[in-house]
Amino acid sequence: MSDKSPILIDLRFDRDSVLRALPEAFAGRQVIDLGDPANRERDLSEATYAVVWKPDPDLFRRANGLKAIFSGGAGVDHILSNYQLPDLPIVRFVDRSLTDRMSEWVVWQCLHHLRNGFTYAEQQRMRVWNEIAAQPEARDVTVGIMGLGVLGADAAAKLKIMGFRVIGWSRSKKEIDGVETFNAGGLDEFLGRTDILVGLLPLTDDTRGIYDRGLFSKLSRTGALGGPIFLNAGRGGSQNEGDLVGCLTDGTLKAASLDVFVNEPLGPDSPLWALPNVVVTPHAAASSEVRALFRHVEQQIERLESGEPLQFVVDRTSGY
Amino acid sequence: MSDKSPILIDLRFDRDSVLRALPEAFAGRQVIDLGDPANRERDLSEATYAVVWKPDPDLFRRANGLKAIFSGGAGVDHILSNYQLPDLPIVRFVDRSLTDRMSEWVVWQCLHHLRNGFTYAEQQRMRVWNEIAAQPEARDVTVGIMGLGVLGADAAAKLKIMGFRVIGWSRSKKEIDGVETFNAGGLDEFLGRTDILVGLLPLTDDTRGIYDRGLFSKLSRTGALGGPIFLNAGRGGSQNEGDLVGCLTDGTLKAASLDVFVNEPLGPDSPLWALPNVVVTPHAAASSEVRALFRHVEQQIERLESGEPLQFVVDRTSGY
Repeated sequence: MSDKSPILIDLRFDRDSVLRALPEAFAGRQVIDLGDPANRERDLSEATYAVVWKPDPDLFRRANGLKAIFSGGAGVDHILSNYQLPDLPIVRFVDRSLTDRMSEWVVWQCLHHLRNGFTYAEQQRMRVWNEIAAQPEARDVTVGIMGLGVLGADAAAKLKIMGFRVIGWSRSKKEIDGVETFNAGGLDEFLGRTDILVGLLPLTDDTRGIYDRGLFSKLSRTGALGGPIFLNAGRGGSQNEGDLVGCLTDGTLKAASLDVFVNEPLGPDSPLWALPNVVVTPHAAASSEVRALFRHVEQQIERLESGEPLQFVVDRTSGY
Repeated sequence: MSDKSPILIDLRFDRDSVLRALPEAFAGRQVIDLGDPANRERDLSEATYAVVWKPDPDLFRRANGLKAIFSGGAGVDHILSNYQLPDLPIVRFVDRSLTDRMSEWVVWQCLHHLRNGFTYAEQQRMRVWNEIAAQPEARDVTVGIMGLGVLGADAAAKLKIMGFRVIGWSRSKKEIDGVETFNAGGLDEFLGRTDILVGLLPLTDDTRGIYDRGLFSKLSRTGALGGPIFLNAGRGGSQNEGDLVGCLTDGTLKAASLDVFVNEPLGPDSPLWALPNVVVTPHAAASSEVRALFRHVEQQIERLESGEPLQFVVDRTSGY
């Protein structure tokens, strides 16, 4: 069972999905599951690898023999924020399934706003039969995506197929086939052309609170939808929720779809729950499928142990 | 103004959209707009062409000099049901815009059901933060499209890009790249593999009431969504609404999205409005954009008058 070096699991996920996936994973390798209370005080110094999501603050002090850290999701801010983080390679979770799920959510919500989902749901509730006369089509609407990694690029491609005009922004300019892209210096021009803003940014010092009133005020106000719309499926820490509530109330934003929040779970007192022009989903846009995560980790360990370089390693300077 | 032969307009559309489009259309041709009360008793025998949507029952008796009839939409049942229909070519409205809008609606509703839109909206209303643990992705779900004309083929292509498995059915077998298709004899096999049934059939003698309990009972019950889902954006006359309500109540169907109804507008007393697992939209999935309709009619008249054959002519035997 344990001729291979031990792996540590510290995943604050739905416990059942971890328990279902573990028995099939990491054959021949000792697994130390920190979700199991029996392991709470255990000596972790023998562990070589760690797969973590929002790990215990003390983890990296206790597990002092690690060679690599694997994030349980696309984001790594939950690891980089650890005060005792050792200087080891951190590997993001990149996965077809994660990417496809994120694009499902983004396209779903763009279509919901394009096709007047709120108005038709309210009319249904009131038993009102009334076709909205001025229904723009996707090609009349520009979706601007902030964050052009694997997720942003896939969402861009699928939104284009659905007919939307798509533009993209990232700190350093990226090339995406058929998509006009902007870099840091082009932010205002990008925002001024955007009808639906899709946030897929990682959380870094540069992006904390970036979605605020100043930014929302620069979005296009002349588009076919009658006002700008904001989607965030990146990180909640990137949004100023006071500004968000204000802008959704005073018309600076027409509507929003939010999957992420500064504090999760979103507290029952947040006004965001009840705004009539907001869709709230509980950080469910693209949850990591645990089996896929473990397969990805196994592949990367195999690469490392056969002398190949790890893939998807985080650049600590940029934070993603 | 009128060196070209007269054209008759009898479109039971939103009146404003017709009035906005008319001044730019049919240059040099006399236009007789039956929406204008002044034309109500007018002699129509000089009209050569007619553009109609749900035309006056008496129209074809009065306009006895027509050479071609243009439908204001993709469907033509509203013309074929006319008792006094002369033996003239009837041209369907085929248009990129109409096609794109229909696919927007179909993809939107498939994603709504895939991504648990009802449950998350209800949780939001209750301020409950709860991620649904067993979230299938599109590739776990088979969408079966009934009706493989221009609209069905476009929806199939876009659903495939979003990741869904797609199969198709039509009376006579059609070939669509990358989509397994079935013909009349393969209906039961097609239904048994379908998790989300998308209705895009024309209304004919063969399709009237085709979506009934017998058909719904043959849909797959083992799919990842926990029960079959029905979308209809074709014609309301194809659905048995008594059966639909029954099947949505007793679990034969898990949910539905309906854009069309036997009687439109849907009466305020219909139980369909209030079922918690039904999305109702008011025949708004792909409304004809009147400017695009008039451009299409002008192109076809130009073909006819320069000796080329008309396109998109309806086969009266099949009814589409």
